[in-house]
Amino acid sequence: MERTLHFELTEFNIRLGAVKAEMAKRGLDILLVSEPPNLNYLTGYDAYSFYTPQMAIVALDSEEPIFITRGMDTTSAKMTTYLSDDSIRGFPDNYVNSSEQSAYEYVARVVKEIGGEKATVGVEMGGYYYSARAHADLVKALPQATFVDADLLINWIRLVKSPAELALMRQAGQIGDLMLKRGIETAQPGVRECDVVAAIYHQQLSGTPDFGGSYDSSALHFCVGERALAPHSAWTDKPLPEKTIINFEVHGNRLRYQINVSRTICIGKPSAAYEKLAGIALEALEVGLESVRPGRACSEVFGAFHKILARHGIEKDQRIGYSIGIGYPPSVAERTVSIRKEEKTVLLPGMCFHLMTGLWLGDQAITVTQPFAVTERGYEPLTLTPRTLVVK
Amino acid sequence: MERTLHFELTEFNIRLGAVKAEMAKRGLDILLVSEPPNLNYLTGYDAYSFYTPQMAIVALDSEEPIFITRGMDTTSAKMTTYLSDDSIRGFPDNYVNSSEQSAYEYVARVVKEIGGEKATVGVEMGGYYYSARAHADLVKALPQATFVDADLLINWIRLVKSPAELALMRQAGQIGDLMLKRGIETAQPGVRECDVVAAIYHQQLSGTPDFGGSYDSSALHFCVGERALAPHSAWTDKPLPEKTIINFEVHGNRLRYQINVSRTICIGKPSAAYEKLAGIALEALEVGLESVRPGRACSEVFGAFHKILARHGIEKDQRIGYSIGIGYPPSVAERTVSIRKEEKTVLLPGMCFHLMTGLWLGDQAITVTQPFAVTERGYEPLTLTPRTLVVK
Repeated sequence: MERTLHFELTEFNIRLGAVKAEMAKRGLDILLVSEPPNLNYLTGYDAYSFYTPQMAIVALDSEEPIFITRGMDTTSAKMTTYLSDDSIRGFPDNYVNSSEQSAYEYVARVVKEIGGEKATVGVEMGGYYYSARAHADLVKALPQATFVDADLLINWIRLVKSPAELALMRQAGQIGDLMLKRGIETAQPGVRECDVVAAIYHQQLSGTPDFGGSYDSSALHFCVGERALAPHSAWTDKPLPEKTIINFEVHGNRLRYQINVSRTICIGKPSAAYEKLAGIALEALEVGLESVRPGRACSEVFGAFHKILARHGIEKDQRIGYSIGIGYPPSVAERTVSIRKEEKTVLLPGMCFHLMTGLWLGDQAITVTQPFAVTERGYEPLTLTPRTLVVK
Repeated sequence: MERTLHFELTEFNIRLGAVKAEMAKRGLDILLVSEPPNLNYLTGYDAYSFYTPQMAIVALDSEEPIFITRGMDTTSAKMTTYLSDDSIRGFPDNYVNSSEQSAYEYVARVVKEIGGEKATVGVEMGGYYYSARAHADLVKALPQATFVDADLLINWIRLVKSPAELALMRQAGQIGDLMLKRGIETAQPGVRECDVVAAIYHQQLSGTPDFGGSYDSSALHFCVGERALAPHSAWTDKPLPEKTIINFEVHGNRLRYQINVSRTICIGKPSAAYEKLAGIALEALEVGLESVRPGRACSEVFGAFHKILARHGIEKDQRIGYSIGIGYPPSVAERTVSIRKEEKTVLLPGMCFHLMTGLWLGDQAITVTQPFAVTERGYEPLTLTPRTLVVK
């Protein structure tokens, strides 16, 4: 069976080493990894199988993680991870959506096998795929273990991207640029919203002539007219009118590495008031980007950005960005760093963010955003589409 | 602000009534609903916002549920639910991805406000978006409340679809048929896998000339050659060879109601052995479908299907189907009923399923499936594409 790895084995070893170092620091014998991006980061695993239980078990004193998934998905594990066959375990299908049996009992047996009854076990308490039930089942099946919240342990390690990861982020950006272009070209009066969305998705999956795209970690956003006031509303199948505002966000995804980027399209000339608002938003975005520098705290970027808004009497208490990288549903945000007033995290080269000017004010809304990587001296934009209001 | 409801208010009232009746039976004062399809079913809510905390609070003695979401998403709640503005509450943005504050403390305050300190509170322990952390935070913030596992309470009520819901399932099926057609037409030697996937997604979103489509609850599956042996593997950007097997699953989604359907495409004439395997699989599928009848248990459908496989010496211990309906990421399966040996649930008119012949045997794999609704006398296919092996 052919094995496809998108990173050198050395890189996986470095990742595992960083995880183990952090485990040792926190006194963990075992780390149970459930978050799909963390599984991908740690082992390379990639398949749409996270809707049933799956977990990697990292033991401080074992060389390789053990990957547990549904029996039928062990084939994907053998194809996409660097793990030896011995380290890949499949649970039987009667554990799936069962009210009588829990796959976490199966996981618990493996934990006992490699870590004994009394291990100190880290779990990702806030992970999207670590349900209250999963935790309760594990605690019950491992009554002598000590459970410790190790949520985000790996997410924080993922924050700074390697050169190989940055190369994929740039490819995701190239796809994102083409998606913006396709959306802008297709959005015309009389065209149904769903047909513009269809064209953008076509571009997302088709990618570029040199490399293809993948599914995104979240549906794209395409918010027209009144719905542009709701940041995450669904599109409809109504034809676009002669005059409207469209706020749309697209997701370029290359081998699970994803960028998000938004633009506002005005069909018909916008009002002077709207153009003024757009000018403020765009200025704030530029100033925010120019303030990016290794060694600065995220709060400083927020401050620079927000100063422009405040000068015009606009208050924005929502975060204006979040760190990005590997994207699996339901979100690309790494759940670690937000760019906001209270965020003390200091920027380092290799971190990637989605910086968002999203203003939803009364009956006016505009979203022009920029994904970027922090460099040695400032920022590198991951998409190259001009940061302007698109007027058609 | 325009409000768009896809069902009559009467239908929402019936749904809420059924939920409250079940709550009363189980002695629950309050039900906390976190599962996105359940939120949609109960209130109409639809937006891609479930990656941050959101919850509906159903109180046995309150007329309307209270819907809690992130502040910026209350606009979507006002646009897509039947709830009065008073029943829609937004939490501040500094609760999002915060290590210091939990949106579930906010939820707990509302629970106290309407149910007091000592309510009996049902929670969806196994829900995809009810994390171990969410539960721990709620338990901590409501120390005098009694928590009861009410997982799947609403999912079981969703099992039988109303006529209005069935109409949407049929529309989803129409989109699914067009997606299969597009995939079959596009899959040619030399065409990159990602370009076939792009064409299928285009069709999914574009839908039909009469109505548009939506994003699916799971990435589609497009598994070529050796990857066809892994049920949920990702596609690549390699060109299709002159001779190969493609197993693909598409998802027609209409206003969140979704059907899944799969076909196998053989590029080049398949071997005699493969054709024989396909014949067995297709016969089993037909016999399974013909065995569908109100009053029969799911285990009987499994039995009829499996008898055909067994006659040819094939054992399949995986489930061969699951109930479908409202689809949000990561899965359309309702997490209630599986068609398998042990499933005692009795079929009733209005239930919808995805019946799957998926055989992954050694180096051979075939998937030909059929979504259907249970009728008064048997089954109604929700897609009309012939159930055959596609040879090109």
